[in-house]
Amino acid sequence: MIFKFNPTNRYMTLKDFKTTKERRDFLEKELRVRLENISKAHVDDEKTIHCENLIGSTTLPLGVAGPITVKNEELRVKSYFIPLATTEGALVASVSRGCKAINLSGGVTSFVENVGVTRGPVFETSGLRESIELKKWLDDNFNLLKVEAEKTSSHLKLKKIGTRIAGTYVYIRFYFDTDQAMGMNMVTIATDSINRLIESKTKIKCLSVSGNFCVDKKPAWLNFLSGRGKKVWADIILKKEIVKEVLKTTPEKFFDIWLAKCMVGSAIAGSLGFNAHFANIVAAFFAATGQDLAHVVEGSMGITTSKVLKNGDLYVSIYIPAVMIGTVGGGTKLKTKQEALSIIGAKNSLELVEVLGGAVLAGEISLLASLAEGTLACAHKKLGR
Amino acid sequence: MIFKFNPTNRYMTLKDFKTTKERRDFLEKELRVRLENISKAHVDDEKTIHCENLIGSTTLPLGVAGPITVKNEELRVKSYFIPLATTEGALVASVSRGCKAINLSGGVTSFVENVGVTRGPVFETSGLRESIELKKWLDDNFNLLKVEAEKTSSHLKLKKIGTRIAGTYVYIRFYFDTDQAMGMNMVTIATDSINRLIESKTKIKCLSVSGNFCVDKKPAWLNFLSGRGKKVWADIILKKEIVKEVLKTTPEKFFDIWLAKCMVGSAIAGSLGFNAHFANIVAAFFAATGQDLAHVVEGSMGITTSKVLKNGDLYVSIYIPAVMIGTVGGGTKLKTKQEALSIIGAKNSLELVEVLGGAVLAGEISLLASLAEGTLACAHKKLGR
Amino acid sequence: MIFKFNPTNRYMTLKDFKTTKERRDFLEKELRVRLENISKAHVDDEKTIHCENLIGSTTLPLGVAGPITVKNEELRVKSYFIPLATTEGALVASVSRGCKAINLSGGVTSFVENVGVTRGPVFETSGLRESIELKKWLDDNFNLLKVEAEKTSSHLKLKKIGTRIAGTYVYIRFYFDTDQAMGMNMVTIATDSINRLIESKTKIKCLSVSGNFCVDKKPAWLNFLSGRGKKVWADIILKKEIVKEVLKTTPEKFFDIWLAKCMVGSAIAGSLGFNAHFANIVAAFFAATGQDLAHVVEGSMGITTSKVLKNGDLYVSIYIPAVMIGTVGGGTKLKTKQEALSIIGAKNSLELVEVLGGAVLAGEISLLASLAEGTLACAHKKLGR
Amino acid sequence: MIFKFNPTNRYMTLKDFKTTKERRDFLEKELRVRLENISKAHVDDEKTIHCENLIGSTTLPLGVAGPITVKNEELRVKSYFIPLATTEGALVASVSRGCKAINLSGGVTSFVENVGVTRGPVFETSGLRESIELKKWLDDNFNLLKVEAEKTSSHLKLKKIGTRIAGTYVYIRFYFDTDQAMGMNMVTIATDSINRLIESKTKIKCLSVSGNFCVDKKPAWLNFLSGRGKKVWADIILKKEIVKEVLKTTPEKFFDIWLAKCMVGSAIAGSLGFNAHFANIVAAFFAATGQDLAHVVEGSMGITTSKVLKNGDLYVSIYIPAVMIGTVGGGTKLKTKQEALSIIGAKNSLELVEVLGGAVLAGEISLLASLAEGTLACAHKKLGR
Repeated sequence: MIFKFNPTNRYMTLKDFKTTKERRDFLEKELRVRLENISKAHVDDEKTIHCENLIGSTTLPLGVAGPITVKNEELRVKSYFIPLATTEGALVASVSRGCKAINLSGGVTSFVENVGVTRGPVFETSGLRESIELKKWLDDNFNLLKVEAEKTSSHLKLKKIGTRIAGTYVYIRFYFDTDQAMGMNMVTIATDSINRLIESKTKIKCLSVSGNFCVDKKPAWLNFLSGRGKKVWADIILKKEIVKEVLKTTPEKFFDIWLAKCMVGSAIAGSLGFNAHFANIVAAFFAATGQDLAHVVEGSMGITTSKVLKNGDLYVSIYIPAVMIGTVGGGTKLKTKQEALSIIGAKNSLELVEVLGGAVLAGEISLLASLAEGTLACAHKKLGR
Repeated sequence: MIFKFNPTNRYMTLKDFKTTKERRDFLEKELRVRLENISKAHVDDEKTIHCENLIGSTTLPLGVAGPITVKNEELRVKSYFIPLATTEGALVASVSRGCKAINLSGGVTSFVENVGVTRGPVFETSGLRESIELKKWLDDNFNLLKVEAEKTSSHLKLKKIGTRIAGTYVYIRFYFDTDQAMGMNMVTIATDSINRLIESKTKIKCLSVSGNFCVDKKPAWLNFLSGRGKKVWADIILKKEIVKEVLKTTPEKFFDIWLAKCMVGSAIAGSLGFNAHFANIVAAFFAATGQDLAHVVEGSMGITTSKVLKNGDLYVSIYIPAVMIGTVGGGTKLKTKQEALSIIGAKNSLELVEVLGGAVLAGEISLLASLAEGTLACAHKKLGR
Repeated sequence: MIFKFNPTNRYMTLKDFKTTKERRDFLEKELRVRLENISKAHVDDEKTIHCENLIGSTTLPLGVAGPITVKNEELRVKSYFIPLATTEGALVASVSRGCKAINLSGGVTSFVENVGVTRGPVFETSGLRESIELKKWLDDNFNLLKVEAEKTSSHLKLKKIGTRIAGTYVYIRFYFDTDQAMGMNMVTIATDSINRLIESKTKIKCLSVSGNFCVDKKPAWLNFLSGRGKKVWADIILKKEIVKEVLKTTPEKFFDIWLAKCMVGSAIAGSLGFNAHFANIVAAFFAATGQDLAHVVEGSMGITTSKVLKNGDLYVSIYIPAVMIGTVGGGTKLKTKQEALSIIGAKNSLELVEVLGGAVLAGEISLLASLAEGTLACAHKKLGR
Repeated sequence: MIFKFNPTNRYMTLKDFKTTKERRDFLEKELRVRLENISKAHVDDEKTIHCENLIGSTTLPLGVAGPITVKNEELRVKSYFIPLATTEGALVASVSRGCKAINLSGGVTSFVENVGVTRGPVFETSGLRESIELKKWLDDNFNLLKVEAEKTSSHLKLKKIGTRIAGTYVYIRFYFDTDQAMGMNMVTIATDSINRLIESKTKIKCLSVSGNFCVDKKPAWLNFLSGRGKKVWADIILKKEIVKEVLKTTPEKFFDIWLAKCMVGSAIAGSLGFNAHFANIVAAFFAATGQDLAHVVEGSMGITTSKVLKNGDLYVSIYIPAVMIGTVGGGTKLKTKQEALSIIGAKNSLELVEVLGGAVLAGEISLLASLAEGTLACAHKKLGR
């Protein structure tokens, strides 16, 4: 069907409707469609929603994996249920199976480092000499920048800066502690404020508040190597009996699959994800808890390691260098997200990342075991007789 | 709060509840939380849902951008509204602004290439000689594999294979046409079937049905360079007057920001995304239309180009090499997703990708213009007087 | 010392000298330096040398590793001495040690695939529609292009083409068989000729005969994933006794070091070289045999694999996806290079690559073993008491 | 020809000869080859040579480009001739042409940052908790490590350390100031000494003195993003008249080629070299001045930028993040290298890198201009009638 109306008028029209219902009614009539479920699922107060041209809400099934026992850096031991929003069959069951193996082995150890949320503006100078001078000025005036940044929000602290120069371009990476929020918005505001100060003091122009040196929502080695938001590691030693009983494979087979897939396979594919499926768990966890879904990109990078210990047990670990997450702000305000967060019961964003780390490890363990099982089955059926 | 219960028992418990309500009731009582909105938002029939340990549904605000006028390869011109599920303020408005500029310039041109959905198992041989032989066998027996694969589904066709060898490891990338579905499930089943045939014929063992040579849900150069699912390109020539009126900047400033950010900035950050924010639009579009959210990872890679033409107009294009999308199967079955798909009104998955291409281009145009505007404002306030 | 002369005049001066001796005399006088060894080492007839402003020759020590026993795809078994030009102490000895371990284990198996030397020009169109049309035209007219290319040299064949589009840019990768030569020059001439034909037929302008889609002398995933020049693989099963006696370590320790360094270490460093030191052997072999030293870049990429077999023996393999090498043309014409090539005695460039593959494997085996030894020593000294 | 001798004996034989001449004689007789030029070109005293199984020397033609006028950070202005060892016709002439354009525009500005030469060992712990503890111990005991390292050489200083953790693996990157030497050897010795101290104090085992976290002689994003050895930048504003007269093109055409090739082309090829041909100049400069040729790999990475200024002039810059170079030690001791270094006349390694930066910029300018010219010619011949 080709619309006969003038599309530029149409744009004005939709924007001009005042209520969600009016927009929905218009679309239903205009396009001859029914939008009743989008309406029905709309449980939030619109004042709390930051989404223009709103017509209602979309839904995702919410399952719960776990519980998972997590020990953190301070040796606190807690059990958590893990809400996961997904339409991929077997994902919740798979994470739950991983949790079971983990719990039977005493629980996952999870560590978090608060790298800081980053914004990376680009300035333009007249050439290298000025670029080098700007870099020096920035190093010399860190405290000035810090004070300026922290005027913009009481929840934000400037942690450090990193600078790279390419000719007339100076890229500056500001790392901020954003308290309990993921914080991209406050970070952008603070960076904008810093940029103006720099411009005012140095007379060097800021080209763009983001020069892709953030690097926001793009797979990038800078995030992998230097981290962004939070880094998380988690590990576990799985008893060989548990590998056999719960995961239906052996430590040796698990290790072989891991090596062939997560290491050599990732290398030969030019991958930044040396893991089995971090993104699956990160996406489902983010969707459940109100995180920005485009940050799944950062969360897909990282490394799973594995080792058969001398006593035959299986060591497995995960490392995600760039987790962009918060317990306040953004999508976390939505009612269903608040409820999911209450299921987890993390007291702050660091604890939330600890749980995520555990959940991702559980997911890796279960999928890699499944792949090993599958091979078994496969080999058995075809070659075994 | 540290749970006193035995977590391994708990795992059994949750799984053993028979209904969504029972699970919810248990969690509410056990954790002393309220899950009423997760319940209220649950509009789907559970039989259609593939999510274990289901407790209800989570929600995301749904806005509508556009309409956008799209011309495809066959010169068909259509206008589409673009449903976007997001909690990022300004995203829908920004895409809409991009659509307006596009429409006023005659509409976006969008091209799609069906690369094929891929699965990349890994086989293990006794060494290079056998690895090379396996590669030759695969090349010689493509039709055999094709017949075997296509037995598993009438919706699936094996398009081609690519093989890479590293010592005893042989990685095989199967490219499938999956009709209107994103198709990872059917592709996995077909690959498993092919693998068994290969094992049976060659006596070489399949280590894993996925050897990260797919590359599924990980940022990877193999996907960037060879494509996965669909490739999409979109472009537009924006009249300089429209750039000024709608986008509040100039073609020259737009180009400068693009160059500093998407090109040099991405290079100096080791990014696989040479773009402004593909992932934002891809994530919101995927969440609205029921795609697998972990595939946002693939959709975040790609290149935006820009050029000031001799007559002063602005050329902008986008290229995403790996779009994993479908109009049937997976999350598209959910009621709210069906409604969103009905708003778009695409007849098939290729058309859906054409619309996505246009939406991403609109998003790039608007954000890059905003960054240029911002700089203007910034420069004006601080340096202009 | 700051020159007082006008540098722009000086440029003219040096170029205008007619003989190597005159240039040397001038520099000796002007800069008050002695260049006698550069003169003494100059053994070639200048007519065969392609180097402007020639003042003589520089030298590199030449050692000989091996012999190494190599079995190729056709099961031919031969032994080769390996000339290596290097100033890195221990490199020749290390490769020799690797050769010894290899020979005692029955010799290396080496496979070569002639991918083809590539040139990647970039064309500029008016937009996507024309870009797509150009791609189709290229696919439809491959034979036309092939005929045109092969007019330029009887030693050259066009094997295939690959095309990528980003907006107005169309990148075309031509793969050529260049017979016994590395062949970049003939490939550039052929590509230029093809480009003119394309321009003439399609009226689309070639922007540059190289659009970095070659990718010449730069580390790039395109070369890693698709190959360039020749791909080479080599492997060996080292008896555990030989690992102990010749390499002073155990298969298990060797494997552990390989995993920690070549796999996880390379991953965590964002490396395209999943190996221990390919570049060392490639550089020394290239310098000895007259290859273009800038092509060491391509040769540094690739993967070493390792495995402890069930019987306790050690499997090791190497894979280099982009070897740019020849036995005729370029630097191979120099007298000292001819002599080094005569030491190897390879009948053609494929055989030369087979030997290189073996040499690289020998180098990997020896260095990884040394690292394992070192650790032993290290651990022994410090922790052993 | 297939050797009849026992290759394992042969290995022993070659090693056991005592003199270069004896080895050469043996090979000449055994292989029926003539090695007179390898002998003739052998000008060095063997005591200064670190190359086992030495049979003589190989040669490379040495040309001289320039002079080039270089201004450094301290505003010192000097002119340098640039010795380049190469067999690629046109390279020296091309760099010379670039130098001419640079000199006529007032000389290149060249900046160097001494990042430090790096070694990256890997330690193995029992798990994450111990890994995190080791990282903290390292941070707390930097001065202890520094003192230990600096005991091993008076020419070496430990500048900083960087640590990354993946499960049981702890990668530590030590950055050393190595004075005038490239310094890999002294850095390895110092690292080995530090490693033993760490093992002794923490009882954690060093797996390998190099864990590919150095990253030595491999293309890697860690080197690109964090630098290795020296970083160098160089830039110039070329008057538009000079672009026309000397480079036979226009600033606009130059810019277009640069954008299509070094930016979009590099992006679409997954390249770590966003430049035209850094590796050519780096390889020729390294071969002339006695650097380790495998370090051409590091020197091939980096970014060329370009811009048409408002007055129509052309700005061009280069940035190489990882230059591994020295003026003493290694191959610099060879007589022909000493003579080449005397032609340059750099007082220290920083100055040598400044000259290299200028030479690379000259090479980029000339090649990019040639590509623009070529297109002109091409377009003219085929489309102009």
